[in-house]
Amino acid sequence: MVLSERSKYALNPIDEDNELAERLIKSGKKVIALNRGDISLYFPTPKYIENAAIRAIKENKTYYTRSSGIPELIDAVKGRYKRMFNVKLKEEDIITTQGVSEGLYFLNASLLNPGNHAIIFRPYYTQYVPSIELSEGKAYYLDYDEEREWDIDTDELEDHIKRMKEKRGIKYIMLTNPNNPTGTVLKKNTLERIVDLANEHKLILVSDEIYDEVVYNKAKFTSVAQVAKGVPHVILNGASKNLDATGFRIGFMIVPGEDKTSMELKKKFADFAGVRVSVNAPAQYAVAEAISNTKEHRKAIGKMVGEIEGRVNFAFKLLGENPYLQTVRPNSAYYIFPRIDLKSLNYNNDREFVSEFLREKLVQITRGSGFGARSHIRIVALPAKPVLEEAINRLNEFCEKKAR
Amino acid sequence: MVLSERSKYALNPIDEDNELAERLIKSGKKVIALNRGDISLYFPTPKYIENAAIRAIKENKTYYTRSSGIPELIDAVKGRYKRMFNVKLKEEDIITTQGVSEGLYFLNASLLNPGNHAIIFRPYYTQYVPSIELSEGKAYYLDYDEEREWDIDTDELEDHIKRMKEKRGIKYIMLTNPNNPTGTVLKKNTLERIVDLANEHKLILVSDEIYDEVVYNKAKFTSVAQVAKGVPHVILNGASKNLDATGFRIGFMIVPGEDKTSMELKKKFADFAGVRVSVNAPAQYAVAEAISNTKEHRKAIGKMVGEIEGRVNFAFKLLGENPYLQTVRPNSAYYIFPRIDLKSLNYNNDREFVSEFLREKLVQITRGSGFGARSHIRIVALPAKPVLEEAINRLNEFCEKKAR
Repeated sequence: MVLSERSKYALNPIDEDNELAERLIKSGKKVIALNRGDISLYFPTPKYIENAAIRAIKENKTYYTRSSGIPELIDAVKGRYKRMFNVKLKEEDIITTQGVSEGLYFLNASLLNPGNHAIIFRPYYTQYVPSIELSEGKAYYLDYDEEREWDIDTDELEDHIKRMKEKRGIKYIMLTNPNNPTGTVLKKNTLERIVDLANEHKLILVSDEIYDEVVYNKAKFTSVAQVAKGVPHVILNGASKNLDATGFRIGFMIVPGEDKTSMELKKKFADFAGVRVSVNAPAQYAVAEAISNTKEHRKAIGKMVGEIEGRVNFAFKLLGENPYLQTVRPNSAYYIFPRIDLKSLNYNNDREFVSEFLREKLVQITRGSGFGARSHIRIVALPAKPVLEEAINRLNEFCEKKAR
Repeated sequence: MVLSERSKYALNPIDEDNELAERLIKSGKKVIALNRGDISLYFPTPKYIENAAIRAIKENKTYYTRSSGIPELIDAVKGRYKRMFNVKLKEEDIITTQGVSEGLYFLNASLLNPGNHAIIFRPYYTQYVPSIELSEGKAYYLDYDEEREWDIDTDELEDHIKRMKEKRGIKYIMLTNPNNPTGTVLKKNTLERIVDLANEHKLILVSDEIYDEVVYNKAKFTSVAQVAKGVPHVILNGASKNLDATGFRIGFMIVPGEDKTSMELKKKFADFAGVRVSVNAPAQYAVAEAISNTKEHRKAIGKMVGEIEGRVNFAFKLLGENPYLQTVRPNSAYYIFPRIDLKSLNYNNDREFVSEFLREKLVQITRGSGFGARSHIRIVALPAKPVLEEAINRLNEFCEKKAR
């Protein structure tokens, strides 16, 4: 075996069914994709953002930029956090990355020694785990509490931190707020309690807030930056979801703190950025415009989130007709994550269910176990209502048939 | 210390003087930059490439793409290798990356276990070393032979491989052809001899060929793919240099072999690509067009390389008037890498020389020790001739003065 030990962790566990789907499509079948969390496939990137990218290209801004990002983008991010959360950032608090995935790499490579742990709540966003493991760390798994609308049980969290902190070298707690795949927005008092625990036990908080403007059903989002006073925290964010520009691959990581740990982290993330030179230049100019043109942004995000809210609630209602599914209503992002009664449906696991549903009914969804939550499925509610209706009707029929 | 052990390797050793340069500029001084190997700063990206990016954006191609790259780009790369080197590639041989820097990460994370070595020749491209060390490998350093125009001494290489292979776990030999910073094009028979050694000792060859079309003075470039019959090899390449589009950050890694090691590598690089989702989409469309529109490309590269040839030879000639420098003539890329007689100039090292030259004469060049070659300096010969003339005259004056 020529490959390194660690390279076995380079896996994307939710891509498994893609080959089957491709085979079906190649054989002439039409597959409905409810598995792609790619907003820009369904809602074209707003014209004012595209025009900013085009302008940058026409002005020949196609050279290397500063590693941590162009000043215009850094300023835009500063403005955003002041405007939305009344959080004051300095230039050196912000690092531009190639998507959140690169931010995860900088984070884990900067923090984890072999055997160090990060607390991850299940269901988690799939990339967290390979990123941790490629840095030779380990995920320490806890579960969001599905019975309480996927809230975090902070007593359980405290219990685990106390028992495990010394033994496992826990470095940080990972939050995904708003959540992919559950669509949960964490309550402010849950966040405050977690901040207290992090403070008491000297842990870093990491919050992936990439969907922080895709919030609806009157839910209220709180950034960790608003409540983390004094506790070192890292925010992962970017252009993919709020700005509907997934293909630009622009992320940013933010370290607002002034404490020693925060200072070390922002310096080190900048070092990592320096090693890989810079991020796509025209996309940086486009995202700077996308964030700082608040008038156009408000129009675009208002329209998009209104539309998403309608589609998610529509799909949620249809799924409610299925007696074999139990679903917490999502209030953000665009995923629905039902628990599925596999036993009544005569399946051993969600993997088999999802593959057979694809094969028989030509609808691709994603298995929950890919997110660390067995007996669940993830449905992307981005397609138009008629497509959602057709696909969910097929799902409901499929379940009826299998339950017999 | 909250940071991981390995994070100390995240350093870019040639950025050291940037702060001093920024201070000088802020204080109102005009600094001539001969330190930026960023072609697109000096030669705007050709219009036909920019137009392809603009077209992709207008067509809303701003979504996630396949992890390994859009089919159009993969096809373009296949066409390029067939056309230029008569090498037949298959789709799965090619992975699109975010610059060569991401390719280096995939490479080293895939191959190196803690303590494994890669053979690197000095002077080396600076990113190789942090990339190896962040994967907990080590560079095993040998030197290009400056006396023989920076050729590789293959007898010495064989000697070291024999002595060190078992002891150090050598995984691959890294070649940079054409070379940054020396501008050397490796001879075909040198390459063939290295292929024989790799074959005999079961080593992988990695060849960074990002400048493979920026070749002049009638030099002849040979790709490792043309001579590596049967020996597993990885080629790193991309859009930055040949296509004059540094800010797009599009690289690709190519694994042409059919042997077991090559098959494992191409599968694993695809896995790594899957973990980070995808690469900037409009840039991929632009680079696909840039490569496959051979008529426009021939025009653009011909003009650009002719101009570079003129500037490099002009700067080389001026540097020849300086009795304290000794320079091998470059035949590719756009760097000049003189050895400098520090003793006669009363300096202890190249670092001090370069910093003082910047401070006194307001010209920024790069110290050779950043590339692993002490007592050298790197000069970027991309600016127009009057700028080069002014800067090199200052260098020559500076040396005259210091030698007294």
